[in-house]
Amino acid sequence: MKASSDTNEIFYLGVDGGGSKSVARLVSSRDGWIGTGTSGAANPFTDYQGALHSIREAALLALDDAGLPGERLNELVAGVGLAGVNVPSMARLIEQWQHPFKGMYLTTDLEIACLGAHQGGDGAVIIAGTGSVGVSVVDGNSLALGGHGFQLGDKGGGAWTGLEAIKAVLLAGDGLGPATVLATMLEQQLQASGLGIVEKMAESSPDEFARLAPLVLEAASEKDDVAMAILFEGGGYLSDLAAKLWQTTPPRMSMIGGFSDAMLAWMDKSIAQRMSPVLDEPEMGAVYFAQLQSKLSSDKRN
Amino acid sequence: MKASSDTNEIFYLGVDGGGSKSVARLVSSRDGWIGTGTSGAANPFTDYQGALHSIREAALLALDDAGLPGERLNELVAGVGLAGVNVPSMARLIEQWQHPFKGMYLTTDLEIACLGAHQGGDGAVIIAGTGSVGVSVVDGNSLALGGHGFQLGDKGGGAWTGLEAIKAVLLAGDGLGPATVLATMLEQQLQASGLGIVEKMAESSPDEFARLAPLVLEAASEKDDVAMAILFEGGGYLSDLAAKLWQTTPPRMSMIGGFSDAMLAWMDKSIAQRMSPVLDEPEMGAVYFAQLQSKLSSDKRN
Repeated sequence: MKASSDTNEIFYLGVDGGGSKSVARLVSSRDGWIGTGTSGAANPFTDYQGALHSIREAALLALDDAGLPGERLNELVAGVGLAGVNVPSMARLIEQWQHPFKGMYLTTDLEIACLGAHQGGDGAVIIAGTGSVGVSVVDGNSLALGGHGFQLGDKGGGAWTGLEAIKAVLLAGDGLGPATVLATMLEQQLQASGLGIVEKMAESSPDEFARLAPLVLEAASEKDDVAMAILFEGGGYLSDLAAKLWQTTPPRMSMIGGFSDAMLAWMDKSIAQRMSPVLDEPEMGAVYFAQLQSKLSSDKRN
Repeated sequence: MKASSDTNEIFYLGVDGGGSKSVARLVSSRDGWIGTGTSGAANPFTDYQGALHSIREAALLALDDAGLPGERLNELVAGVGLAGVNVPSMARLIEQWQHPFKGMYLTTDLEIACLGAHQGGDGAVIIAGTGSVGVSVVDGNSLALGGHGFQLGDKGGGAWTGLEAIKAVLLAGDGLGPATVLATMLEQQLQASGLGIVEKMAESSPDEFARLAPLVLEAASEKDDVAMAILFEGGGYLSDLAAKLWQTTPPRMSMIGGFSDAMLAWMDKSIAQRMSPVLDEPEMGAVYFAQLQSKLSSDKRN
């Protein structure tokens, strides 16, 4: 009951809504980090209502974790980062949500990852996971490059890497591309060959393609030319992305994502060496975002 | 009634089952081409029962066109060419069909196109339409290269060409690839730009990508480097495909498909100059296939 007696205390909620889970962090202006909640996926493209449900549930779990009742949802100033809200029609749809919070500030999963990596300060990140994307936040201006999905771009991400491996194996199988140890590796992993591979991968998800990326790393460690060429192309793209982001003069840049450590070795050395460690998680970035935006709002009012 | 009085007369039905329509040709061993029928799509992957229905319907319409009653379906020796039956599981499924014909010989849409192009003789074809694929039929051996779908291959086809155009425009938009007039052209055609293009094309069909291919031809005619590079890459692949097919020593080779005329200009001159005209339609190729297979069967029996 201490919380309610302090009228100056503000509760900030940061939510990182992701394709497999959603994580909420509750921060009090007086006591700092007081609770965390983890709920299901929040992908508004595949399940819009489910995404809103996951956000609400993660928030309730964070309140509960802090020993606070669910009815205090309406006291929270929420920052929410969600994939896909850089697509204008999706952003409009979510803005229409009658959310349960005192206030809600919506941005991309990318921007909260960037704010988290640099503890709320300016900076840039390159995210190389299933996909690939670059973001910078400098002087209140946010720039995102790439992140178009592995079929249209996302070079250097796991799904693109797996896709290129499949293409190379099919070409080699037709005698129209160089032989590669990837052929045997993929055939073993997929339990298929030739047109069986086509059949198996035709409707596959980005994650399923990304699951093949470790084979490309393994083949490259065996000095397979085809695998090395794929990783060089991906690493070259990520280096170009980083160079472009440095043009926005961020004070720091970090690499994030499950494929980022592996890809650092295939990037330009000078670019790779300038990367700084990640300081905070994306959900904490969402808290910083809520704090920044509510300060901007109150500055405007005063 | 002449037909039934001649006990030596054999009726061959050739069916070209395609993604948008199915065409059947009825040929009598005595009178030659006596009827044609056109029905709906026959894509066993998207609609298996519908594909079988379309084949039967095209056959009935061809009988009707020849002035023969529907009950004579069971006198027809049918050759059927269908997309996707080179995928083993699909071939097995269709072989199980209790078809209404006297006999049915099943093969790919590719093999009947090849047999048609060379009037039932040995030869090879490169098909550059929405996708791209190469086939040769020599001494009873059939070889197919490519045809893996535009996401995994099919370079030089319309869908791949459209996909590469989208990728190039997105790269240029991020300042990570060379500027191209394709940007303005695609934006006008799609009524979208930047992430709007991603949103629009994310779930698009091969046909929708292929619809962008004419823009690439137009941009290339304006000497746009990016468009020319895409067409050179596609044409180079098709040239490699042709060179590989020539290794099977086909007496003739032809180009087929809606994008083939355009792509000839981007192929190696020596390869392009060796292409011969198409002599017959795929449905007639299916008739040749039925004749060849039934002769093989009776040779085996005797």
